[in-house]
Amino acid sequence: MQHLKESLINELRRMDLLSQVSSVLGWDEQVNLPVSNASVRQRAEQCAAIAEIRHREFTRTEFREKIEEIEENLNLEDGELAVILREVRRDLDRATKLPSEFVSRKANHQSASYHLWVKARKQNDFNSYAPTLEATLNIAREEASLVGFEANPYDYHLDKHDPGIDAKSVSEIFDKLSKSLVPLSERILALTEKKEIPELLGFPESKQETFLREVVANLGFDFSRGRLDIAVHPFCSGNGTDTRMTTRYDPDNPLDSLFSSIHETGHGLYEQGLPAKWLGTPLGEAAGMAVHESQSRIWENQVGRSRAFWNHWESRFREFFPEQLKEISSEALYLAINKVSRNPIRVDADEVTYNLHVILRFELEQALFENALKISDLPAAWNEKAKTLLGLVPANDTEGVLQDVHWSGGAFGYFPSYCLGNLLAAQLWETVKSDLPDLDSLIEKGEHKPFLSWLNRKIHVHGRKMNLFELTEHATGKKLSSTALLEYLESRYLRLYEES
Amino acid sequence: MQHLKESLINELRRMDLLSQVSSVLGWDEQVNLPVSNASVRQRAEQCAAIAEIRHREFTRTEFREKIEEIEENLNLEDGELAVILREVRRDLDRATKLPSEFVSRKANHQSASYHLWVKARKQNDFNSYAPTLEATLNIAREEASLVGFEANPYDYHLDKHDPGIDAKSVSEIFDKLSKSLVPLSERILALTEKKEIPELLGFPESKQETFLREVVANLGFDFSRGRLDIAVHPFCSGNGTDTRMTTRYDPDNPLDSLFSSIHETGHGLYEQGLPAKWLGTPLGEAAGMAVHESQSRIWENQVGRSRAFWNHWESRFREFFPEQLKEISSEALYLAINKVSRNPIRVDADEVTYNLHVILRFELEQALFENALKISDLPAAWNEKAKTLLGLVPANDTEGVLQDVHWSGGAFGYFPSYCLGNLLAAQLWETVKSDLPDLDSLIEKGEHKPFLSWLNRKIHVHGRKMNLFELTEHATGKKLSSTALLEYLESRYLRLYEES
Repeated sequence: MQHLKESLINELRRMDLLSQVSSVLGWDEQVNLPVSNASVRQRAEQCAAIAEIRHREFTRTEFREKIEEIEENLNLEDGELAVILREVRRDLDRATKLPSEFVSRKANHQSASYHLWVKARKQNDFNSYAPTLEATLNIAREEASLVGFEANPYDYHLDKHDPGIDAKSVSEIFDKLSKSLVPLSERILALTEKKEIPELLGFPESKQETFLREVVANLGFDFSRGRLDIAVHPFCSGNGTDTRMTTRYDPDNPLDSLFSSIHETGHGLYEQGLPAKWLGTPLGEAAGMAVHESQSRIWENQVGRSRAFWNHWESRFREFFPEQLKEISSEALYLAINKVSRNPIRVDADEVTYNLHVILRFELEQALFENALKISDLPAAWNEKAKTLLGLVPANDTEGVLQDVHWSGGAFGYFPSYCLGNLLAAQLWETVKSDLPDLDSLIEKGEHKPFLSWLNRKIHVHGRKMNLFELTEHATGKKLSSTALLEYLESRYLRLYEES
Repeated sequence: MQHLKESLINELRRMDLLSQVSSVLGWDEQVNLPVSNASVRQRAEQCAAIAEIRHREFTRTEFREKIEEIEENLNLEDGELAVILREVRRDLDRATKLPSEFVSRKANHQSASYHLWVKARKQNDFNSYAPTLEATLNIAREEASLVGFEANPYDYHLDKHDPGIDAKSVSEIFDKLSKSLVPLSERILALTEKKEIPELLGFPESKQETFLREVVANLGFDFSRGRLDIAVHPFCSGNGTDTRMTTRYDPDNPLDSLFSSIHETGHGLYEQGLPAKWLGTPLGEAAGMAVHESQSRIWENQVGRSRAFWNHWESRFREFFPEQLKEISSEALYLAINKVSRNPIRVDADEVTYNLHVILRFELEQALFENALKISDLPAAWNEKAKTLLGLVPANDTEGVLQDVHWSGGAFGYFPSYCLGNLLAAQLWETVKSDLPDLDSLIEKGEHKPFLSWLNRKIHVHGRKMNLFELTEHATGKKLSSTALLEYLESRYLRLYEES
């Protein structure tokens, strides 16, 4: 049995090398790829070739037979092996059920679809893109059917990003959340209108970079196993052995690069905290998108926007930018860091209203998959929900239904993870505050190791052993719910705006 | 037949995608890889995985059968197909004859060997490295035997880098060259001793970069299909659709970064000039290392160090660096650009003495493979040849026999390409001077398109259709020889130092 286990792990690691290569190619595409169409096309072909080989290796008969042999001889006391088998079996079943004809048809469609979306967004022209989106949705339904979710295709797409969740369980949580968050956000927005929040202008990019690298390193990111570069959209890719994060710089928006870097650092610390000895197996992989997002959000918001954090960093920030900040008081700076405003664009939204952006998309996706909404009616439905949830109507489709890249790539069921991650982040924060009573004073001293170790123990070390719901209960002793997030937002933002 | 041809080309392109991926991984390793041992090890494993898959795909039965079927039905009038078949057949025969056990043993040895060489060079300790080099040489012999060159292993290693050459043909050319070049270089060195050549100090890196990017773009490098980054050693990798060049900056040596960039640009222009429609097949690949080197050298030396080139660029160079250059006259600057000096280090050598460094290595490699020289006697033999050819004795082995990385990677037979490339560059220059009589005045105006187009027609467009010797005759009407190089060096350097 031992040799079978080792041989399985070696196989998984070998195949993981191909996934790592895909990740390098993807990172390089965003960070380094020359702009010519031929260069872009060639990269797409390279990625497709690697993905195809990965798929072929994973689904080949000898590998399946090895899995079956281990399953038949499974020693139930080997918990590690049981987790590996459970996860690999699910991935394999799904991969096997998707014929390569379908996989390549989907990839081709997505690549074309992306470019049509870019064009449509630029030209504020939803109609030209609608048939493509319709086709994308049909392909997503087809994929769900192929893997056995014909009756509940949206559940498949939710589960794909976060194993164990479905539309019903997410609905229950989101319904409760929106019921309280809509009035809470209106209350906070009304308070902010009375405040004058300064703009931060003229921050040289190279100084921004030096400052935020100092912050990122201080949080615990290991630059000997990772990088931070520039890309149009901030992201984190790779694994804990070679973690590649990106950010972007705008001289008139230094908080964007800073907080997106702290956000990506949260992702990076998760990757770097996964157990290295299980790398390439499910025990060395992240538990899902929502858990990943909980890690980025907790560093970005709960830590990075806290009083304690700025009590530590404000003086250093002013050392870097004395001129730019000299007219801005401590309190005004802290308000700028915690600005809440009505914004039609999700990626620019603050942590209060962000969740409503997600709920909007979740409800629309659910309606689309349930055939309760037609693609042609999507822009109107978007605007109506924006009115109800966010209290605004987008000026046009570019700022509304066309704003996100996700659907163009067929990534339905992805948005909910962002909000579920926020919920988990708030629950973790509630828990760590009682586990580490001196956390605030540690953060005030710039000491993040105790908190990082806590996350390592509570979240990182478990890999894919538990799903989102299980891990939440295991780490916080409570079911995932909207309670902690609502309390956190209320206490931070009402206090902030009422006090100041 | 047409469908077989198309299917072969598609197969080759698909496999070429894997080579492209290896190239991206290799570039990224030099330019971006985090420094931790784990990161480096992981990258090595990724590269090995891709190389193994590439080898397996290339040598699998179905592919060989396809080649055989085409060979049996070959339409001899299809010259393109004939070239593709000839080249693929040679690559395939060799790849097939190397068992995967050998390939992985060699890769493992090289990786270990590289690190031992780094250590030995640092500690000036040839003896500790000698047994490893012995083993490297034996593996090189074994490789030659496996592919059928048991009697003449060095010929195999020469042919590997430049198809069609062998020790005899190279010897004949190099013997003639060294006979004239040793006295010529001594004559030039004696003249330079009378000159005062200024040092260029304090050139800020970012300005160097801006300036040399302007130069590189002006030469014709298409940045929409390529990049220029920083690495420890300058190199050019990728293909014409995504050409990645590197350089390095030293404030006190701006000519190093400039000329290494022009050199790599020569490589890059060759890649970008190869026929895109044949990319991934031998018709879209470079003819060999020597031809590649002819392209880098002709831009670096014949163009980049010419009077005409500096008549165009000097004023711009002074605009970038007015302070640094204000005490340096035009003539002194031009002498610095064309400095000839006795230097034990090949990579720092000028274009006159460089060729003697290569001849030294060629003669030693030849003696090693012929068992006329033992590894233990190599340092002494090196120093003796350095005395004869270069008129110097290295201060130690670090500056002598241990200076180059090539042997540590088993790259025997590679050095001659550098000198053969210089020979071809000189012959091409002689030819283009008569084909484009106004070339000097074009270069003086910064117009490089006519010259680049000429190289496109004469060299680039042919891919691997002709080998070094055939291509030389085709492009210049003469056999490859030392004549043009000697005339060029004599006329440029004797005139320069006698005149000035």
